[in-house]
Amino acid sequence: MPKLVLVRHGQSEWNEKNLFTGWVDCKLSETGRKEAKRAGELIKEAGINVDVLHTSVLSRAIQTANIALDEADQLYVPVKRTWRLNERHYGALQGKDKAECLEKFGKEKFQTYRRSFDVPPPKIDPKDEYSQIGERRYNDIDPSVIPLTESLKLVIDRLLPYWQDEIAGDLLDDKVVLIAAHGNSLRGLVKHLDNISDDDIAGLNIPTGIPLVYELDSNLKPTKPAYYLDPEAAEAGAAAVAAQGQKK
Amino acid sequence: MPKLVLVRHGQSEWNEKNLFTGWVDCKLSETGRKEAKRAGELIKEAGINVDVLHTSVLSRAIQTANIALDEADQLYVPVKRTWRLNERHYGALQGKDKAECLEKFGKEKFQTYRRSFDVPPPKIDPKDEYSQIGERRYNDIDPSVIPLTESLKLVIDRLLPYWQDEIAGDLLDDKVVLIAAHGNSLRGLVKHLDNISDDDIAGLNIPTGIPLVYELDSNLKPTKPAYYLDPEAAEAGAAAVAAQGQKK
Repeated sequence: MPKLVLVRHGQSEWNEKNLFTGWVDCKLSETGRKEAKRAGELIKEAGINVDVLHTSVLSRAIQTANIALDEADQLYVPVKRTWRLNERHYGALQGKDKAECLEKFGKEKFQTYRRSFDVPPPKIDPKDEYSQIGERRYNDIDPSVIPLTESLKLVIDRLLPYWQDEIAGDLLDDKVVLIAAHGNSLRGLVKHLDNISDDDIAGLNIPTGIPLVYELDSNLKPTKPAYYLDPEAAEAGAAAVAAQGQKK
Repeated sequence: MPKLVLVRHGQSEWNEKNLFTGWVDCKLSETGRKEAKRAGELIKEAGINVDVLHTSVLSRAIQTANIALDEADQLYVPVKRTWRLNERHYGALQGKDKAECLEKFGKEKFQTYRRSFDVPPPKIDPKDEYSQIGERRYNDIDPSVIPLTESLKLVIDRLLPYWQDEIAGDLLDDKVVLIAAHGNSLRGLVKHLDNISDDDIAGLNIPTGIPLVYELDSNLKPTKPAYYLDPEAAEAGAAAVAAQGQKK
């Protein structure tokens, strides 16, 4: 039966500095690397044999996959990368300090930009140093789809075509699929898989570095609730993510 | 114009222990990781923008590529993996101490197994712990092609079909292709590209961790001699590899 394993990358250098990241390509911090290693240990301990890996094109997700699969002795698995698994584009907030943004936009707008389903932050200036317009890694896609900002809804809109064709294709071949990606692209995927409403998705927090496993039927519906490979750590991790959202 | 960049992985845990490795999946030593990092620095300093990566399915080549591309800030490039880029299969010598093999087979046979073009070492017992028969990473290929031993000639025979279709295909799309592989698969490729005779190839030593660059025409012939990104280190490295071959 198809099995889907989701891993959210751990702490990046910018998480550490309290900056909005989005599509900016910062790398894992030392803590983030340890989280990735732990993800690999859990995959190994659970006896999960990955058949194919899908990642975003952002370094922190790719590093997470590389470190985890090295730890699990499965570096050899085929890899597919796509911008459609990228983190949500944070628009004009990218590269900005979170505390400064709170001050600038006020609490209500700030929370809306962070957690509303369909209100994106203000667009980034295409010439801003933290815009991705013209970045080499997007040279092979239609330039008009490189976003200047995104809501979670827009993330899901650009994620689903890849899910429907590429990831679903692998799952329907009865493969064990590992996805290494980001808080918001994974929330979008979980929303789809668990049929979570637009309102309820705001309350869903995915902890970092702890593999989340879906066992699916031939219609790609979960045959039972998804489970974390380390449920206790996952609970603590989700609480930490939720608290982070409320900080300041 | 098409550009091909070859990187031989650095020291592995078994190189360190003086054991024959071949298709056994040991990982990089700390020295090997540093060599991979240096390869990435050289790629970055040379301003090389990789379009696609090809690796073997052995961890030490994949680790080398992962570390180098991380260092070069190009983790996002598409990746293809193939058993056809694997190291030469060392047959019954895999997992054996080199000094013990010298004693067991005598100097002449030992040198023949190491360096002759078309004489493979004795076959490994399929049930030997260092045979690859039944190994999961080869589940998706015809089981009959998993070797029990290989000469350099046999490596070239299984490598060329992949070169002709996959690597050549990328190069003819004017891509910059990075290959992370092994001493003998890369010697096979260089023999083909530089039209080196069966006799002369024995004298060719490729240093580890130093990118070797080919600029090719539309018939995939070199437009000028291939060059190392750090020629001085390459010369020292090749001499070290040659000396290693003569040791004991």
